[in-house]
Amino acid sequence: MSTAARASLSRAALHASLGDPVLESIGFLNEVMGRHPDAVSFAPGAPHPAPYADLDTARYLDRFLDHAAAAPGRTRESATRLLYEYGPAQGLVNEVVAEALRRDQGIDAAPDDLVITVGAQEAMLLTLRALLADPGDLLAVADPCFVGITSAAAFLGAEVVPVPEDHDGLDVAALAEACRAARRTGGRIRACYVAPDYANPSGSRMQLARRQALLSLAEQEDFLVIEDNAYGFTAAPGTELPALKALDTERRVVHIGTFAKVCFPGARVGYAVADQRVGTGHGSGEVTLAGELARLKTAVTVNTPPLSQALIAGMLLEHGGSLAEPIRTRAALYRRNLTHLLEALDREGAGGVPEGVGWNHPDGGFFVLVRLPVPADEALLEAAASEYGVLWTPMAPFHVGGGGTHTLRLSCSYLDPDRIDEGVRRLTRFLRECAHPGTGPSRRYGTSRPGNEGAPK
Amino acid sequence: MSTAARASLSRAALHASLGDPVLESIGFLNEVMGRHPDAVSFAPGAPHPAPYADLDTARYLDRFLDHAAAAPGRTRESATRLLYEYGPAQGLVNEVVAEALRRDQGIDAAPDDLVITVGAQEAMLLTLRALLADPGDLLAVADPCFVGITSAAAFLGAEVVPVPEDHDGLDVAALAEACRAARRTGGRIRACYVAPDYANPSGSRMQLARRQALLSLAEQEDFLVIEDNAYGFTAAPGTELPALKALDTERRVVHIGTFAKVCFPGARVGYAVADQRVGTGHGSGEVTLAGELARLKTAVTVNTPPLSQALIAGMLLEHGGSLAEPIRTRAALYRRNLTHLLEALDREGAGGVPEGVGWNHPDGGFFVLVRLPVPADEALLEAAASEYGVLWTPMAPFHVGGGGTHTLRLSCSYLDPDRIDEGVRRLTRFLRECAHPGTGPSRRYGTSRPGNEGAPK
Repeated sequence: MSTAARASLSRAALHASLGDPVLESIGFLNEVMGRHPDAVSFAPGAPHPAPYADLDTARYLDRFLDHAAAAPGRTRESATRLLYEYGPAQGLVNEVVAEALRRDQGIDAAPDDLVITVGAQEAMLLTLRALLADPGDLLAVADPCFVGITSAAAFLGAEVVPVPEDHDGLDVAALAEACRAARRTGGRIRACYVAPDYANPSGSRMQLARRQALLSLAEQEDFLVIEDNAYGFTAAPGTELPALKALDTERRVVHIGTFAKVCFPGARVGYAVADQRVGTGHGSGEVTLAGELARLKTAVTVNTPPLSQALIAGMLLEHGGSLAEPIRTRAALYRRNLTHLLEALDREGAGGVPEGVGWNHPDGGFFVLVRLPVPADEALLEAAASEYGVLWTPMAPFHVGGGGTHTLRLSCSYLDPDRIDEGVRRLTRFLRECAHPGTGPSRRYGTSRPGNEGAPK
Repeated sequence: MSTAARASLSRAALHASLGDPVLESIGFLNEVMGRHPDAVSFAPGAPHPAPYADLDTARYLDRFLDHAAAAPGRTRESATRLLYEYGPAQGLVNEVVAEALRRDQGIDAAPDDLVITVGAQEAMLLTLRALLADPGDLLAVADPCFVGITSAAAFLGAEVVPVPEDHDGLDVAALAEACRAARRTGGRIRACYVAPDYANPSGSRMQLARRQALLSLAEQEDFLVIEDNAYGFTAAPGTELPALKALDTERRVVHIGTFAKVCFPGARVGYAVADQRVGTGHGSGEVTLAGELARLKTAVTVNTPPLSQALIAGMLLEHGGSLAEPIRTRAALYRRNLTHLLEALDREGAGGVPEGVGWNHPDGGFFVLVRLPVPADEALLEAAASEYGVLWTPMAPFHVGGGGTHTLRLSCSYLDPDRIDEGVRRLTRFLRECAHPGTGPSRRYGTSRPGNEGAPK
């Protein structure tokens, strides 16, 4: 047969979510990183690998098996078999996770209120799928926003409504207005996604009054809050704020969590606490929303790998049913890195940076934002990588509602202090030489102004 | 705050896929199984646990780490870190899997033509998401059909077109007609799902000419074939037929596979071979469809757990880069069980079963279908469980286009021969006493005929 008959596809003929600018942007960033392996990269928000050296996975597995074998009617042999079989869709270790949530975060949930997922990402996709039932069902997000939630919405073809945030997180009055605006056009805000503590990418943090205002609005406007709590653990001792779910007396919050940052990302274990009651329509039958998410999970991954669940549960059991101790050491590592990054920026920047360059000073999380007087676009990123050996993440793709064009994100999570120092030296030189309106590399490398190449003026 | 303000949800207000009769049916089956733990259950299609006793996961992991550490620039330490980090979305072990596909199934795929997924289920969801771009894009399925693919379609709100099959699998002429019918209404069949070998649930098998006819039609009508190859390995030596992907010279087939049956299901490792070329729209840029599926994966699970991938790759490496030997022993186990089940049915049935009762005699796979002269519905299942101590799966939920109401599915995969014997004795008594039109328990227990209770006539 001729090769002309071969199936040929174009991205334009595939699902629209594949054309998502966020995916394009991630792809470009990875590609640039691949071409510049010696650059100091402030791009990845991945956890630091140092704690992996302490992971005694054989021991964690053993701990889980001891625990599982102690259940009535169970032997060590039948417990081991749990690792190899499919297992329950809702999860194998819900009881252990529920206990840790109670002890570490003051979240009171029964095992049936939880579904264990393949990372927090699957929990987001399942939650959106359950709640966004009709085309008029909208997801509000704090803008800028973690790309995992917007890509899950795009995967489902669901519409996202950006709500501005300030240093203290989501603007609740603006969300109230978005609810009214949605109603006027026949739609409704069905859920609102927020990361209340040191959000990725903005680093914003909701203070207590803001958290309570959001919960009140959720009740008033009848939507659910999807809380992503990935960075709350980085708060300095004494500065912790309660999770929205710990404040939620009315079952308005679906709390999504991950073990990627405190245990390890390769486990791919996350969860949703979804204690909302769902009427099944069969008489007085009622199930939890978590149970409904588990039913949807049969269409996605069927089960979260039991071996992964066992490792996480074993780690929890090894630490007495709580993650307090690993949280303490990990949080100290990330605060050290963040402080180091901010001090280096302030120190190097004191030598002078162009007008309009500045950065925020978050007190937790993985991220620092740098404002520029020039667009922080792909051309500028290419120049930073090839000429200065430093990489960062453009902020525009995180902004659903537009904006962020002149901001870049630095992540401090994956680097060691000496690499941070070297990276900040390179970054400062880059800022000094390139962050001048009309003269930076984005102008020189951009396609819109050929002939405008040359040394910065 | 009053409890009246608590978020209350009804299933009817959640996404329509939660109301899928298939999910309801699975839920009911699980619930009946839970209430009758001593019943012999022919319901679960899960792999037999015996091979788990031979799984030396520590050794497999070691094998993988040896292999990974031998890569240029890699140490044993950095290889170990691969297990704990996120890793590449497209997969960590593509090269090892591609080599096994070449050796075991004659499928010639480059590592970049593969994406490693959380079970075959995630591969199905990703493939459907990529291909079903518009509401008019339809998925054709052989009817009856594996519920994993129809639930993935329901998750995406995509429309499914059932195409009848016979003993030799999908009716290709009927599919051609479905393509024409779709065009007349402004839609198009974008993909067709088939399990060519011993399909779940029907046990049908496509002969070589049928396979070739399907590939020709795919080319003619410009759709892709989604091949699910879960049961091909059970073919008796000398009776193997080539996978559709091994016959596919024109990149018309997306081949979906699983390691659940030959390795172990708890790993949750599957894959898609998607070597189709996709134009990105950026100049002459071209990527593989597998790469596109990996991009979509960031919205679903981000990565397949590297530890799971490492275990599977280690098992492959331990067996010299091929699964031929485990395939041989597993296939022998399942053929022994299937033969045992069919012999027991024929032997016990020789004592007499009601008119209209009969079963097929597949020569591979996990499943046998039993036709009844009465509806094989939930009421009949309840009676089989509570009065006869035997469980089976009603076939109707597998039929997208209606039908299957008078058929039940028996699975032989999970049981041992003595349990199969006991189960068939119970089943035969149940068939003798209940499979009489108008008199069986489905009439006695059904809600539609109150007052018709009493001993079978």
